[in-house]
Amino acid sequence: MKVLHKLHEIYAPLDFARREGKSIGLVPTMGALHQGHYSLVDESVAQCDLTVATIFVNPSQFGPKEDLSRYPRPLDQDLAGLAKAGTDYVFVPESTDIYPNGHSTWVEPPAVANPLEGEFRPGHYRGVATIVLKLFNLIPATVAYFGMKDYQQLLVIRRMVEDLNIPIRIQPCATIRETDGLAMSSRNRYLSPEDREKAKCLSRALQHVEELTNSGEGKIDFLESEMHRILEQAGATHVDYARIVDAETLESLSRFTTPSVALIAARIGNTRLIDNRVFWVMQ
Amino acid sequence: MKVLHKLHEIYAPLDFARREGKSIGLVPTMGALHQGHYSLVDESVAQCDLTVATIFVNPSQFGPKEDLSRYPRPLDQDLAGLAKAGTDYVFVPESTDIYPNGHSTWVEPPAVANPLEGEFRPGHYRGVATIVLKLFNLIPATVAYFGMKDYQQLLVIRRMVEDLNIPIRIQPCATIRETDGLAMSSRNRYLSPEDREKAKCLSRALQHVEELTNSGEGKIDFLESEMHRILEQAGATHVDYARIVDAETLESLSRFTTPSVALIAARIGNTRLIDNRVFWVMQ
Repeated sequence: MKVLHKLHEIYAPLDFARREGKSIGLVPTMGALHQGHYSLVDESVAQCDLTVATIFVNPSQFGPKEDLSRYPRPLDQDLAGLAKAGTDYVFVPESTDIYPNGHSTWVEPPAVANPLEGEFRPGHYRGVATIVLKLFNLIPATVAYFGMKDYQQLLVIRRMVEDLNIPIRIQPCATIRETDGLAMSSRNRYLSPEDREKAKCLSRALQHVEELTNSGEGKIDFLESEMHRILEQAGATHVDYARIVDAETLESLSRFTTPSVALIAARIGNTRLIDNRVFWVMQ
Repeated sequence: MKVLHKLHEIYAPLDFARREGKSIGLVPTMGALHQGHYSLVDESVAQCDLTVATIFVNPSQFGPKEDLSRYPRPLDQDLAGLAKAGTDYVFVPESTDIYPNGHSTWVEPPAVANPLEGEFRPGHYRGVATIVLKLFNLIPATVAYFGMKDYQQLLVIRRMVEDLNIPIRIQPCATIRETDGLAMSSRNRYLSPEDREKAKCLSRALQHVEELTNSGEGKIDFLESEMHRILEQAGATHVDYARIVDAETLESLSRFTTPSVALIAARIGNTRLIDNRVFWVMQ
């Protein structure tokens, strides 16, 4: 496994491989890798001739009061895990190379970036869209893997790729969960043992909505209030949102249809967690 | 020469050519081609294995009161000229394919887009940067040719390419002029015979500044007022700006240094014309 740090090092060998007709899978990450990330790497290794992972804690997607400085950076452990998973290249750029002095071009993300996370993390998807486009330009991959856990991010990137005609395929991958249902996240390590117990409430609330809809419940207001009830009863410190919206546009629904998606962002202690569930059920 | 209209038609043959190691030159245009455009094509044909021209009157770079609807579209004449010049591919997409329903991702252009044209044509460079990025993604070119006549555009694109790590080389090409000095422009055909005569004042004002600086004049205020004087005496209907600024950043200069650039935007009759001159002279 080759670990590259400089921007000019990464393009040429991969462009050469691509010219030889090799497929290249890209797994962009912020490090602090867990089984969710490794499931993306596994999928790429299974499908592509070469797999490239990137590790970059992207400052431009963090708000001024967010956890940029304390975001975990266990680089050696991540590199060991990636090597074991069969990764061919790991790109670990420096922030000063990604955002040099005078950098001032940004991606204005598509409309699907505006609700939900867009309201609670203004500027977040502008930072995400910009770094992802930069990585797509630095690394001539044929396919890029993104987890469904960051559902809105996946929609933002898919729409950006379509709108900007970027020649890459976006492959969504299923959310990986702990045995008790908690979606895997680099931020789970912030949770105290007590908060870790409480954190199950996100997946439980989504599970409850699924059960209600399976038994015929179709009132959005009621379903959303049920999610709030479960989150609050479990001791969530704050619920940013618990919504059921159109699975493609994330726009509000007047009644439950399919495909729709339930999305939650809630603070457990000081840790902000997100989760979601897509509904393909027929009413 | 192949003329392609559909977005999915253009990428594959050029990607194939590139895999074979061929260099591909791109000349993006809005049609209504003149010797300025053909000089870009000539340069590409001389330097590259394949030359691709695009013709697309990009609606998103026109303001609501600008000349989008009456912008000249002599397609047959353009195609004949491009064939004669040795162009290999011409890409003529439809507006509804470039901006389909729901398109909502844009490039927020770099800081160098803000002054001058940025003040008088708000949103112009957002439209330019977005369409140019889209064309760079649709057409896997190795080098793209842009005329120095649109000097600020060239800086915007160069900075965008750097900031977004786009794997393409930007080649600036000298402004081509009529024998009396008027910079060639698709908009020159709007000029009445009387206005055509007046239009010489832009290049004359720039020439005058060059002569003054060659003879040691270094006061920016004075040089700018001289440009205004020449433009107004010649009968320019309105001078949007006549500035001397840093040639890289387009920021104001307190005194004449090098490299700097003099830029003019002025209305002659109803036609808005621009021109510029870069100064490499030593003070």
